[in-house]
Amino acid sequence: MYKFKVEERILSTNEEYAASNRELLAGKNKLCLNVISSPGSGKTTILARTIADLKGRMKVGVIEGDIQTDIDAQRIKAAGAKAIQINTDGACHLSAAQISKALKKLPIDKLDLLVIENVGNLICPSVFELGENCKIVVLSVAEGDDKCAKYPSTFARAAAILINKIDLLGTKHIDFNIKRVRKDIRKVNEDAQIFEVSAKTGQGMAEWYDWLAKSVGDPTSV
Amino acid sequence: MYKFKVEERILSTNEEYAASNRELLAGKNKLCLNVISSPGSGKTTILARTIADLKGRMKVGVIEGDIQTDIDAQRIKAAGAKAIQINTDGACHLSAAQISKALKKLPIDKLDLLVIENVGNLICPSVFELGENCKIVVLSVAEGDDKCAKYPSTFARAAAILINKIDLLGTKHIDFNIKRVRKDIRKVNEDAQIFEVSAKTGQGMAEWYDWLAKSVGDPTSV
Repeated sequence: MYKFKVEERILSTNEEYAASNRELLAGKNKLCLNVISSPGSGKTTILARTIADLKGRMKVGVIEGDIQTDIDAQRIKAAGAKAIQINTDGACHLSAAQISKALKKLPIDKLDLLVIENVGNLICPSVFELGENCKIVVLSVAEGDDKCAKYPSTFARAAAILINKIDLLGTKHIDFNIKRVRKDIRKVNEDAQIFEVSAKTGQGMAEWYDWLAKSVGDPTSV
Repeated sequence: MYKFKVEERILSTNEEYAASNRELLAGKNKLCLNVISSPGSGKTTILARTIADLKGRMKVGVIEGDIQTDIDAQRIKAAGAKAIQINTDGACHLSAAQISKALKKLPIDKLDLLVIENVGNLICPSVFELGENCKIVVLSVAEGDDKCAKYPSTFARAAAILINKIDLLGTKHIDFNIKRVRKDIRKVNEDAQIFEVSAKTGQGMAEWYDWLAKSVGDPTSV
């Protein structure tokens, strides 16, 4: 029993910080995305390409969550965006208190879009609200087409789902039924936007950029 | 502070069950592996192929950990092994108490090898001992070559690491420097056996089977 009581208390403290982050961002009318996926699905590659492709059109600030190392923050900075690194020291998700601190280090007023790249983990990060407008889930076709069926609660909470590495489809190496995935997503989430992209080749990224531009224009719409 | 106290208590209760599982398996001289990876690295495909290829040579029992669904247990049964499904109902790792219950349902005396396929998560499962002889980590080349650097504590605890989907190497779709990964592994783990395999094509699986046979012959060696 004690386990559930403590879980409630941790989540309730987290929710207080999340509400405060949400209020801060709403007051400034800024869109904030919480990007969640397995390790290696391509979150950082998608963000780096998005930042580079939208240079001049959209100013992006990124909060990078990692267990240790600043490999991802370096990649984001190289792409041309502000990046704040959070190291969780082994913890499996970002907390709203960590985001609250990181937001103080970002020049929010000068940015159009805030992105939180969560720790690579398809499970725990989906439980902790950070004050974001919405969650974005990335799924690589190399992970297999059963992932929505196996991790439904994460997919259920997403406003947009990017199916990445689609340049691998049609090769002999990958068995991935994209129709099955779309069907599995719709079972748990009727509204999520689904984008089929390759952050490597750029295929399908334009639709994602259009969605981003629309959502930045009206953060309350997502 | 309360967070750490509770974490210690949960881990200490888990360690009691783990010790009891370890004692049970040691008394029967059975090898038990705890397989850990990101979602979609190919754990189930590796196990299913191993079971099918070693039919007649090795009797395998599998404890399948999943958040919900029994998709993986069905695949393991189809490959010809005994499989017990554990659904964690949203939890991000298996616990030793769950393994203790599952072991009671397996005909351990008739098996040569026990495999626990943990929940798809490269972080949390590495903290919870289950009573296994050793941990096996699977990394797919599609996840990228920075994963050992970014999730070192999981790789540090592995007795064997399978680098899977190597049939994708050498295609234009994948940038994966296997030398870098081997170097990163050696920084945190001097002793782990490293296998380069494709569970899809069978490439490299023979060396893994040799290691399995040797380890089944002497579970105290791993």
